[in-house]
Amino acid sequence: MRIKGTFLDEISHDIPHQNWGRDEWDRDFGYMKKAGIDTVILIRSGYRKWQTFPSEVLMKSEGTYRPPVDLVQMYLELAEKYGMSFYFGLYDSGKYWTEGKFSQEVDLNKRVIDEVWTKYGHMPAFKGWYVSQEISRKTGQIIDLYASLARHCKDVSEGLPVLISPYIDGIKNVSQYVNDTTKAKGISLQQHENDWREIFDGIKNAVDIVAFQDGHVDYDDLTGFLQLNKSLADEYGLECWTNSETFDRDMPIKFMPIKWEKLLLKLQMAERAGIHNAITFEFSHFMSPQSAYLQAGHLYNRYLEYLELIKSKNNGFSKTGFTV
Amino acid sequence: MRIKGTFLDEISHDIPHQNWGRDEWDRDFGYMKKAGIDTVILIRSGYRKWQTFPSEVLMKSEGTYRPPVDLVQMYLELAEKYGMSFYFGLYDSGKYWTEGKFSQEVDLNKRVIDEVWTKYGHMPAFKGWYVSQEISRKTGQIIDLYASLARHCKDVSEGLPVLISPYIDGIKNVSQYVNDTTKAKGISLQQHENDWREIFDGIKNAVDIVAFQDGHVDYDDLTGFLQLNKSLADEYGLECWTNSETFDRDMPIKFMPIKWEKLLLKLQMAERAGIHNAITFEFSHFMSPQSAYLQAGHLYNRYLEYLELIKSKNNGFSKTGFTV
Amino acid sequence: MRIKGTFLDEISHDIPHQNWGRDEWDRDFGYMKKAGIDTVILIRSGYRKWQTFPSEVLMKSEGTYRPPVDLVQMYLELAEKYGMSFYFGLYDSGKYWTEGKFSQEVDLNKRVIDEVWTKYGHMPAFKGWYVSQEISRKTGQIIDLYASLARHCKDVSEGLPVLISPYIDGIKNVSQYVNDTTKAKGISLQQHENDWREIFDGIKNAVDIVAFQDGHVDYDDLTGFLQLNKSLADEYGLECWTNSETFDRDMPIKFMPIKWEKLLLKLQMAERAGIHNAITFEFSHFMSPQSAYLQAGHLYNRYLEYLELIKSKNNGFSKTGFTV
Repeated sequence: MRIKGTFLDEISHDIPHQNWGRDEWDRDFGYMKKAGIDTVILIRSGYRKWQTFPSEVLMKSEGTYRPPVDLVQMYLELAEKYGMSFYFGLYDSGKYWTEGKFSQEVDLNKRVIDEVWTKYGHMPAFKGWYVSQEISRKTGQIIDLYASLARHCKDVSEGLPVLISPYIDGIKNVSQYVNDTTKAKGISLQQHENDWREIFDGIKNAVDIVAFQDGHVDYDDLTGFLQLNKSLADEYGLECWTNSETFDRDMPIKFMPIKWEKLLLKLQMAERAGIHNAITFEFSHFMSPQSAYLQAGHLYNRYLEYLELIKSKNNGFSKTGFTV
Repeated sequence: MRIKGTFLDEISHDIPHQNWGRDEWDRDFGYMKKAGIDTVILIRSGYRKWQTFPSEVLMKSEGTYRPPVDLVQMYLELAEKYGMSFYFGLYDSGKYWTEGKFSQEVDLNKRVIDEVWTKYGHMPAFKGWYVSQEISRKTGQIIDLYASLARHCKDVSEGLPVLISPYIDGIKNVSQYVNDTTKAKGISLQQHENDWREIFDGIKNAVDIVAFQDGHVDYDDLTGFLQLNKSLADEYGLECWTNSETFDRDMPIKFMPIKWEKLLLKLQMAERAGIHNAITFEFSHFMSPQSAYLQAGHLYNRYLEYLELIKSKNNGFSKTGFTV
Repeated sequence: MRIKGTFLDEISHDIPHQNWGRDEWDRDFGYMKKAGIDTVILIRSGYRKWQTFPSEVLMKSEGTYRPPVDLVQMYLELAEKYGMSFYFGLYDSGKYWTEGKFSQEVDLNKRVIDEVWTKYGHMPAFKGWYVSQEISRKTGQIIDLYASLARHCKDVSEGLPVLISPYIDGIKNVSQYVNDTTKAKGISLQQHENDWREIFDGIKNAVDIVAFQDGHVDYDDLTGFLQLNKSLADEYGLECWTNSETFDRDMPIKFMPIKWEKLLLKLQMAERAGIHNAITFEFSHFMSPQSAYLQAGHLYNRYLEYLELIKSKNNGFSKTGFTV
């Protein structure tokens, strides 16, 4: 099991920015490549007033601030340089859809999609779309939102694939603005199945890939959810990846790189559930040798040792002693 | 718009200490100098039981702990070495003035001012005073406290300038001991004007410079407050600077370096409001190449690129693509 | 006063993991050695489902996850290499004893103790035991738990010493999952004495060393507690060390390295209370030159300067100006 892709956390809404310039990003794509990552996914092209590229649509309609850098252009160029696929994450208003105004979120994003495709669609690394409105349950008209946006993405781009990455309403699904790391009760497998049957039924043929976040449930419960997600996705014809989070949800400090042992355990659980592709949220803060969090660089080294072990088909002990 | 000054966050009451010795501080003053900073402001000379220099007044009266280092002496020497101005921040009892005992806070500080001027007043870098009791609104006898302390500072020092740096009671004015980053309602421009008319009227001719903190209001509201602060200060004859905070108030982790884009936006807003001088809280944690937060070093690099751009009067795109 | 020992924070339950491999741990033991540390104490061999070595007892009984590395083996080898003593920390179920099922916690741990001694008892660095169930007050059958576990440790190992490290229920005894750093009321000296008389009476002849954590009380109250702890321990025949915490409990961000001035103050208070040995929680995150928290490396440098000062019996000012 390898991590094939990572999110690019721009615009972040809860993780402090690293203030990298182009040199740092160039180097980071190199580190990703060396770790076998071939796909980068922009987590969102904008959030409320902040945006990753100077969108005329958003500046006119939402009064977003003109950004000092065109990150979309830069990411597309770097992805091309390193032979990677770039997925474009849609705009998240942070309000319309969360306040029930789903059609406003959809209409606005359709215009962003048109603008983006006109502006960047010719660039060779542009290989897919990511619907950035994160959900966990069937609420309101979220199914319509997913389906219409995904269809519009595919329509303008000759069918490029569309990815979503929902979370599971598990016991670790708590706000980043509280200090607790767990809540009393998570969703049951049965309720999760009911919700996602209905969602998958509504978005099949529009959304291509679903990569559930793997950090919201207890480790003991994860296998059950991974298996259910895989079998449901199979049934409705979606590809099932795992979004194996590389930050640690169990700590009172929010958010730091995960312990390698936990990441390894989650990847192995996904593999045993029949899942073949992993992406992660996200490389540059939590796994990069140049991350501001030095724990990330050590996680990178542990992960490279693991890749080495897999390659040598050596199931014994490595120099650092871990087994796979 | 350039940052001309920075606070020195000793004694900090909420940001973890970096444990620097003289070598690290010497190097940091060099980094500041290179970034155009010519003024350093001691945020407070003491807080509750902790102090930056061995004050006989405070040890006798408050039982403060004898510090292992005389930071005031060291800062004055380094400021002289690098050709900078040093502003001395008064003692904050953390109790008398917050419990309504304003005259005790004033009397104690007057004795500290006398002691400090006797001890360090001859040093060439000693160029001003900072009243460290942070306020936002007219409450209690705060006007008297500001005016009497400022007058005493000027009296003993042949009129050296006195600086204050209040905050605005905006939606981001929340305790650092809660995880929320916003509250429901911030102060209105009108109420802010009413409060500060009264305060400015009471402290004019005593306080010379006011540098409001710029981090407590929404970015969309900042311009309004900057303009109001500038015009009020002009009216009452105070210099108006901006305290452009270099840490990010929008994140659940408290406190990390700000995203360059946000700092740039705030500096530009202040410039457009007619403000000519910026100071920041604060360089050594949030902007220094040797900060324990590596995001700070990248912020430093982005800021130096920006200074380079200004200098070359090049309004196009730099290597890293930002515009000014 | 020197720090003779440090905890090894594996398995951590609240401090983010550094993801070190054997090379980093080897280097860290070298840094410890250079700072005069001769004792390493595994904080706990397991916590809930996570463990430091592949315990057949725990995997069978508790369904713990098989760890990728045998940390106990590695620590014992490194301790031997650097001439240090290793203390083994017992398993903390995180449930039985906290839910009143003391005998289950005891029985399980007795089997772990047997397993561990059989597996690692022959290794030369194995020099003691640490009972990892942290307490502050006499609650439930905690005395029996301490006494029976300690006795079992000594029985299997020909009397190797047993250490405990309780905390004091002071005003800073607040959950790491709340943002407050203090609570309204801490325990009184009298109540602390009453509780610990009863506990010491029950565990004397079983537990050899008690090292109270020094971070939960106000600095002004610490001397009183240190003196009381020392005299009580003397009375009941236990050795009294201090666990001088190297992280800062006064900050809203949890947990960062402590300010050197505070650590120095606490060590001096302990020394004046007649205590001769200090251990710390813990070196690798909060004091190591290779810690992910760069403040830690500076703390290390300040501490080495302090050792240098002690050695030279120079009570004047060092290059960085601190006094001892």
